[in-house]
Amino acid sequence: MSCDFLALAVPGVQKLSPYVPGKPVDELARELGLEPAHIVKLASNENPLGPSPRALQAIRAELDELTRYPDGNGFELKAALARRCQAAPDQITLGNGSNDILDLVARAYLAPGLNAVFSQYAFAVYPIAVQAVGAEGRAVPARDWGHDLDAMLAAIDDATRVVFIANPNNPTGTWFGPDALQAFLRQVPERVLVVLDEAYIEYAEGDDLPDGLSYLAEHPNLLVSRTFSKAYGLAALRVGYSVCSAEIADVLNRVRQPFNVNSLALAAACAALEDEDYLARSRQVNDAGMAQLEAGFAALDLRWIPSRGNFIAVELDREAGPVYQALLAEGVIVRPVGGYGMPRHLRISIGLPDENARCLAALAKVLGRG
Amino acid sequence: MSCDFLALAVPGVQKLSPYVPGKPVDELARELGLEPAHIVKLASNENPLGPSPRALQAIRAELDELTRYPDGNGFELKAALARRCQAAPDQITLGNGSNDILDLVARAYLAPGLNAVFSQYAFAVYPIAVQAVGAEGRAVPARDWGHDLDAMLAAIDDATRVVFIANPNNPTGTWFGPDALQAFLRQVPERVLVVLDEAYIEYAEGDDLPDGLSYLAEHPNLLVSRTFSKAYGLAALRVGYSVCSAEIADVLNRVRQPFNVNSLALAAACAALEDEDYLARSRQVNDAGMAQLEAGFAALDLRWIPSRGNFIAVELDREAGPVYQALLAEGVIVRPVGGYGMPRHLRISIGLPDENARCLAALAKVLGRG
Repeated sequence: MSCDFLALAVPGVQKLSPYVPGKPVDELARELGLEPAHIVKLASNENPLGPSPRALQAIRAELDELTRYPDGNGFELKAALARRCQAAPDQITLGNGSNDILDLVARAYLAPGLNAVFSQYAFAVYPIAVQAVGAEGRAVPARDWGHDLDAMLAAIDDATRVVFIANPNNPTGTWFGPDALQAFLRQVPERVLVVLDEAYIEYAEGDDLPDGLSYLAEHPNLLVSRTFSKAYGLAALRVGYSVCSAEIADVLNRVRQPFNVNSLALAAACAALEDEDYLARSRQVNDAGMAQLEAGFAALDLRWIPSRGNFIAVELDREAGPVYQALLAEGVIVRPVGGYGMPRHLRISIGLPDENARCLAALAKVLGRG
Repeated sequence: MSCDFLALAVPGVQKLSPYVPGKPVDELARELGLEPAHIVKLASNENPLGPSPRALQAIRAELDELTRYPDGNGFELKAALARRCQAAPDQITLGNGSNDILDLVARAYLAPGLNAVFSQYAFAVYPIAVQAVGAEGRAVPARDWGHDLDAMLAAIDDATRVVFIANPNNPTGTWFGPDALQAFLRQVPERVLVVLDEAYIEYAEGDDLPDGLSYLAEHPNLLVSRTFSKAYGLAALRVGYSVCSAEIADVLNRVRQPFNVNSLALAAACAALEDEDYLARSRQVNDAGMAQLEAGFAALDLRWIPSRGNFIAVELDREAGPVYQALLAEGVIVRPVGGYGMPRHLRISIGLPDENARCLAALAKVLGRG
C-alpha cells in the first residue's frame, strides 16, 4: 500500500487547479482529424503576423551555441531593455514569460497568513500563483468588467503584501487612465508591492493609457511586468521581464532559476526589441482586426466589452460553452471564459483579416444567423 | 523613505544566495578583451560536440510557429519519452531544465517545519530549492566524496519529506551501484519522496550504475530526474523531465508554469531523443577526453576523484581560487568548487581533444610545471 502523495503536498498545492491554456491547433487536428492548416486559432492572444524576420535571423545566428547554457544574467537583453526603459540593468528581472515574473513575486513576498489583492475577471495566473504558495487571494468585484481601484484599495489590510493590477486587463480588455493609476499608487501603503501587468501595453501605448514605467521613480513599491509574447510575437520562446527598484529585483533574482530564459529567447528578444517595423505592423493589424470584429459583432446583433488589447470579449445571448464547442467543429478555436466567471462571453483574439472573417462566419452559422 | 523590500520577503528567500553559474565565454571575452573563439570553456558540463544535426533540423522546422504558445502539455515529447522510458505519458513531468523539476518538488512537498536530506558535495540547486521554500536542508557528510547512503537514511526523521540523491553525483562524479540503491530504497520510509537525479546517467548507462527507471514500479515514492542539457547537447534550450507515479506527476504539474518548456525545446528534444548516433559520439568523446585528462593530471602529479560524469574534479596542491583566476587569464574557464566546500579542487568538464590539451597546458603553466 503506497502513501497518498496528494495529501502529502503542501496545502496550497493540494487545492490548486492548473491553468487551462487555449486549445492547441495540433490537439484539435488530432481530435477532429482536420488539417492543421485549415484551423483558425484565435484563442491565446498570439500575434497573427508570424515571426519578426529580425528575431528569426537572431535565432539562426545562435544555433551553433545550442550545447551551451544561456547567459544566466541575460547581460545583452538586460542592457537593451534598460536603454529602452530608461532604467538601470539591475532594475530588470527576466522571466520565462511574464508568468514567471508573477510567480517569482508570489514566491518572494507571499506565504500562508498573507494575502494578495486582484480584480474579479483578472488574469487566471494571479490566483494560481498566490494559491501555490498558500497565501490568500482576494478577488475584488469588478466595475463594468474593469478594475474597481477604489474597492481594491479598500480590500488591502495589514496582511496584504501584493496587489496585482493589469492595464489593459485580460480577458476583458478594459483599462484605466493615468489619473486613476496615479491616485491609486499614492494611496497604496508603501509596504505593499504593486504589480502592474502591462502584457498588452504595446497595443495601447501613446494613447490614453499610462506608461507604468514613468511612475517607478516616485513609487519604489511599483513593479511593471511586460512580455515578448504578444506584440513582439515570441510566445513560443517564453520571455518576459519586469522593471522595478534594484532592491526588489535583487530579491526576485534570488528566487529565479539561474537559466530560466533560454538562449534563443534571449537572442530573439534583443532583435525583436529593435524591430520597430514589426511592432508598427502588429499595431496596424490589430487596430484593423478589432474594427472588423466589432463590425461583425454589430451585424450579428451581439454586444462586446470595448478592449484595448489584442482580443475582445463578445457577449452571447446564451451559454457560451456549446457555442465554443460548435466553433471547434468548424475548425475555429476561441477561448471560453466560464472559468473567469463569464459564462456567456467568448474571448476572441484579433487575427489576420481572413481569420477574423472565418471566425465571424462560423459564429454566424453556429448562432443560426448566417 | 521607502520600505525595506528585502525584509518584507519571506524568510527563506531573505537568506538565499543565488546559484553561481560557470563563467560565460562572452563575459570573459568582455572582461579580458579576448576573442570568444580563443576561449576554452570547460566549466558547465556542456557537450563539446556542438548540436545534434537532427535537433537543429527540428528547430528550423518549428520557426514558423514562433508567435504561438508552446503545447503546454508537451504531448509529442511526453509520448516519445514514455515510449523510451517504458512509462505512461502521465508519469512524465517536463521541466525548464531538470533544475525546474527539483524546484517543483521543493514547492510541492516542502515548507517551513519540514526538511530535505541530501549529501555534502551535492548539486548546489538542492539546498537553494529547499531554502527558497523555507524548509530545512540537511547536508549529510560524504564518504570518499560520494553519498553515504546509510548516513542519509539515519538523517531522515518525521519531518523529512524529500531525499535528493544523484547518480553520478555533480560536482564529484562519484556513483553508487544497483545493490546500494536497492537497499536504500527498501529502507526509506514510503512517505518520503526520493528524487534520484540522473542528469549524467547517459554517460554511464549500461555499466555498473543502476537505471533508476527500473525501480519505479516497486517504489512509488521514487522520482527519476533527467535532462537534455548534457549528453543530448541542448543546454541552451532548457529541457529536463522526471518520471514517477502518475499521482506525484499530477501534483508537480499543478505547480508547473503552464508553458515552462518552450516550443523549440520541445521539438529539439523529440529529435535529439532519436539521434542515437549523436548520443554514441557523445559517449565516445567523453570516454576519450576523460582518459586524456586523467593522463594529463598524472603527468602533472595531481590527484583526482574518479568520475562517471562528463567532468572531473582535480585536486591541487594549493588553494584553487588563484589557479582558477590564472587559468582565466590564459583563456581557459573551469569551475571553482570552493562554494561546495572543496577549496583545493577544480571541476573540469570534458572537452574535445584540443580543448582538453589547452586546459592541461594552461594548468601546467599556471602550476609552474610546464
